[in-house]
Amino acid sequence: MKIEAVDFFYLAMPQITTEGDGSQDALLVRVAAGGHVGWGECEASPLTSIAAYVAPMSHGACRPVMASVAGQTIDTPADIARIAHAIEMDSMDLLQAPHTWSGIEMALWDILGKARGVPVWHLLGYRRAHNKQPYASILFGDTPQETLARAQGVRNSGFSAAKFGWGPFGHGTLSDDADQLDAAREGLAEEATLLIDAGQVFGEDIEAAAARLPHLERVRALWFEEPFLGSAYECCATLAARSLVVKLAGGEASHNVFMARHTIDNGRVSFVQIDCGRIGGIGPAKAVADYAVARGVTYVNHTFTSHLALAASLQPYAGLAAHRICEYPAAPKVLARDIAGEPLKPDDNGEIRLPETPGLGISVDTAAIAKYLVDIEIRMRNKTLYATPRLV
Amino acid sequence: MKIEAVDFFYLAMPQITTEGDGSQDALLVRVAAGGHVGWGECEASPLTSIAAYVAPMSHGACRPVMASVAGQTIDTPADIARIAHAIEMDSMDLLQAPHTWSGIEMALWDILGKARGVPVWHLLGYRRAHNKQPYASILFGDTPQETLARAQGVRNSGFSAAKFGWGPFGHGTLSDDADQLDAAREGLAEEATLLIDAGQVFGEDIEAAAARLPHLERVRALWFEEPFLGSAYECCATLAARSLVVKLAGGEASHNVFMARHTIDNGRVSFVQIDCGRIGGIGPAKAVADYAVARGVTYVNHTFTSHLALAASLQPYAGLAAHRICEYPAAPKVLARDIAGEPLKPDDNGEIRLPETPGLGISVDTAAIAKYLVDIEIRMRNKTLYATPRLV
Repeated sequence: MKIEAVDFFYLAMPQITTEGDGSQDALLVRVAAGGHVGWGECEASPLTSIAAYVAPMSHGACRPVMASVAGQTIDTPADIARIAHAIEMDSMDLLQAPHTWSGIEMALWDILGKARGVPVWHLLGYRRAHNKQPYASILFGDTPQETLARAQGVRNSGFSAAKFGWGPFGHGTLSDDADQLDAAREGLAEEATLLIDAGQVFGEDIEAAAARLPHLERVRALWFEEPFLGSAYECCATLAARSLVVKLAGGEASHNVFMARHTIDNGRVSFVQIDCGRIGGIGPAKAVADYAVARGVTYVNHTFTSHLALAASLQPYAGLAAHRICEYPAAPKVLARDIAGEPLKPDDNGEIRLPETPGLGISVDTAAIAKYLVDIEIRMRNKTLYATPRLV
Repeated sequence: MKIEAVDFFYLAMPQITTEGDGSQDALLVRVAAGGHVGWGECEASPLTSIAAYVAPMSHGACRPVMASVAGQTIDTPADIARIAHAIEMDSMDLLQAPHTWSGIEMALWDILGKARGVPVWHLLGYRRAHNKQPYASILFGDTPQETLARAQGVRNSGFSAAKFGWGPFGHGTLSDDADQLDAAREGLAEEATLLIDAGQVFGEDIEAAAARLPHLERVRALWFEEPFLGSAYECCATLAARSLVVKLAGGEASHNVFMARHTIDNGRVSFVQIDCGRIGGIGPAKAVADYAVARGVTYVNHTFTSHLALAASLQPYAGLAAHRICEYPAAPKVLARDIAGEPLKPDDNGEIRLPETPGLGISVDTAAIAKYLVDIEIRMRNKTLYATPRLV
């Protein structure tokens, strides 16, 4: 099958706010090859990722992503890996390239699965897709009262696990954070799993992060996510050594397999969180899952956007029964909800099951999302490099 | 001083080839503040870096670089660090951001130096700028004969050190590479320093890289640069342990201080190479230089573009007398030569001296480069986000 078309669609809510909510816009990729159509989604900054696809070449190691993708043949997973390697070498100096490629890579797996009539997890070598326990991923409220209300909402929705993150956490006093943690725990069921995401707020300040550990223990948080800057592995390892009960989690910013491995080996996390929309798609994420298994670390998806991104992000560890927990965007913006024709709803046991349908198992509802489409044009020397294509 | 204007200029040669020559295009940044004008240069893929400046916000941790820069005040180096930190947090999910910010950061140092009437290296705390020994940075020829001719050219130009890289190296047989290495050594003076840059060609293949070590020793190469993928620190450390004579060099892809530290601590390089156009500018590069000193590692600039980029890249280690060697783009495209009004020519001893003039000490020859200007327009919903500004 020859890659005949790669189209990017930038979707956005009418208003974008500064809250840490990644579902306010989306960059979808539609790829056509061999009579099949595949879909993927890139994280984040749609305009920049589009530019990385169409930018003129700077030199041999700084070619646009398009140079390694357009017109290529894909008939096996090895073909996807071959294109990934071409981008690794030929877009070496184009920093944004892994984010742009991630969405394309998902779409190529979607096409391969559809062409063979099997789900993507089957192509990855898994015999079955095990059910996952979704955790509702939401933001701290501006006040403990708001956080309490959100936690009660999560409980009423039937989730057995929830993650609270960002918002005011780490920006105020120790006592402010304790109030937020108490509110989160109070609103959840006694037996519910509670996860906390600091959103890198402590920079490299180990003591500030460590000061939160006793209260994190008190509210029985399972993990403390990204207390430090994404590449500050040493800080993370130091805190991990000091935290006997609460585990460390991180890795979402990894834009190649090495970074994820370093998060495990040098950051000493117990949970490695991979965003398939950043790391280069499903193939490298599967390599991280294999690595995590070998190191006794639990693999978790990082997903705060649509159910298309969610379906892609669950494939790399679909067959790992012991790696049960999964991030589930519980309160996304309507844009992100409208993308997937068949959202991945929790079943009666509150579990998520990946579809058995070929490819990623998610259709994109083009009619529903047309209203979010952002009209973009990039022109160079009076020649159009990119213009928003027709969605339908 | 308030940042009043930030203008990006995309320059390109009429023809861009796939050779590994980073001087074929350039992204210049001009910043105006407090009646002063500063200049900087971003590495690489100009269109993508422009997009990262003007892209609409995706969410609070994925704001465009502009959001942290426009209208800010800069009166001290701490102000530059404050803006850098804002970008670190607020453009956390915008992968291209460090490359975009790098050029702006240089321009801010240029402005601060001009406002105070001192060179940038003085603002960094250095009492004087020590002379550097430039190495001519050139590409292997397609054949050993071409490489020999280039090496002879370097010798005739008076350089006492030269680096050969990319081209066919590592793509053919061991014997092909030996012929290339012999040609490089043969063309240089007996006492000249020879450096070899593999351009990541061996991926993660330690044995393939190790097989080159005996011949690298035979031609007395001082360092073996980037045999592996930029983040494959473990491969680099393994080879470093096996190479008793030839030292390892790397780090150019670092887009934050942590990556450079990991190149030193986990990659076990003896030379850490920092591109000020990628790592976030001069401030973080100075932090790496301090770190290198503490670890007994030699700091080296990475520069393959203009003398504006060169002047910026020498500042972070200008005062380190023991860190003498510097990369010098010896055969850049005419575009890169035309950018700087006063190029940094080797003196009678073949050494490079940073100017004592305020700021970066380089003026941009706007009249000379106007002919390379690439006309770009980025429009969103019929609103212009970016249009190439007037150069003069």
